[in-house]
Amino acid sequence: MRLEALMTSLYFEEAEIGQLRTAGPYLVSKDEIIEFAQRYDPQPFDIDEEAAARSVFAGLTASGAHTFAILISLLSKTQPYSLRVLAGLGWDELKLPTPVRPGDELSLEVAILEKRESKSSADRGVVRNQMHLRNQKREVALQCINNVLVARRPAGADRKDSELVK
Amino acid sequence: MRLEALMTSLYFEEAEIGQLRTAGPYLVSKDEIIEFAQRYDPQPFDIDEEAAARSVFAGLTASGAHTFAILISLLSKTQPYSLRVLAGLGWDELKLPTPVRPGDELSLEVAILEKRESKSSADRGVVRNQMHLRNQKREVALQCINNVLVARRPAGADRKDSELVK
Repeated sequence: MRLEALMTSLYFEEAEIGQLRTAGPYLVSKDEIIEFAQRYDPQPFDIDEEAAARSVFAGLTASGAHTFAILISLLSKTQPYSLRVLAGLGWDELKLPTPVRPGDELSLEVAILEKRESKSSADRGVVRNQMHLRNQKREVALQCINNVLVARRPAGADRKDSELVK
Repeated sequence: MRLEALMTSLYFEEAEIGQLRTAGPYLVSKDEIIEFAQRYDPQPFDIDEEAAARSVFAGLTASGAHTFAILISLLSKTQPYSLRVLAGLGWDELKLPTPVRPGDELSLEVAILEKRESKSSADRGVVRNQMHLRNQKREVALQCINNVLVARRPAGADRKDSELVK
């Protein structure tokens, strides 16, 4: 608990619209693209360099599911802060405008779009995030919006005292 | 090309609203959950059974990115038909209502919600699909909508002739 308190993990009250956090870069290797695709998305243009060269992508590209997994892997590492997320509510407007290729270095940018208090629970709020996963040329590999439940700052000593009374 | 023609892969014209296709079941093992999470989403409740037992999920659960990858792996195997997809346009309303646990058997259901001709290109149309990935109890593990570009049936001899003239 002490360690958690030392990290910059924001409560709902501290999240500000427009606030940006970033993570990366994540270097994508050819082996990783092929390994992921063989397991979950064995399309010829994801696993076979010759077939890939002939495809519309003109070369090996990562499965969209793989690109999403890389976004998730970066999401828990954002700086200079993270949010005290209680649960994810879902994803919207997920697009993959630029294919990911071997050697790409992907960086994640997350900005807070909106926040609102929960109507049903006083201890949480909903935060809407805009995410962009960009390659080294700043092209967008994946963009999406996600909504998360974020913990509100506990009322503090008063609340703890009243809990102790019970 | 001959082999492709033998598969039940529908052109835009043949896609009908409400038409259902399915794939699965996909058996999710504990090892696979842990392996995926260690690589892309190392949250304690995804990789450590003891930590998982203490979490709100009361047991080991798959990363959402993993569940999405399983959906993708089933998407290319739907029966009794697939669509002649030219490109994906994106994903909407993606939610993960029920956690995926070791031993779950996941099945994919895809239904066509809407279709419309492309305004800019005569050779394609947009199809909007509703997807549900369900476990063996029929609980929804992942639901989403995706929009894809689907090839229209080529005009045939007439068109080829006019192309040859040029």
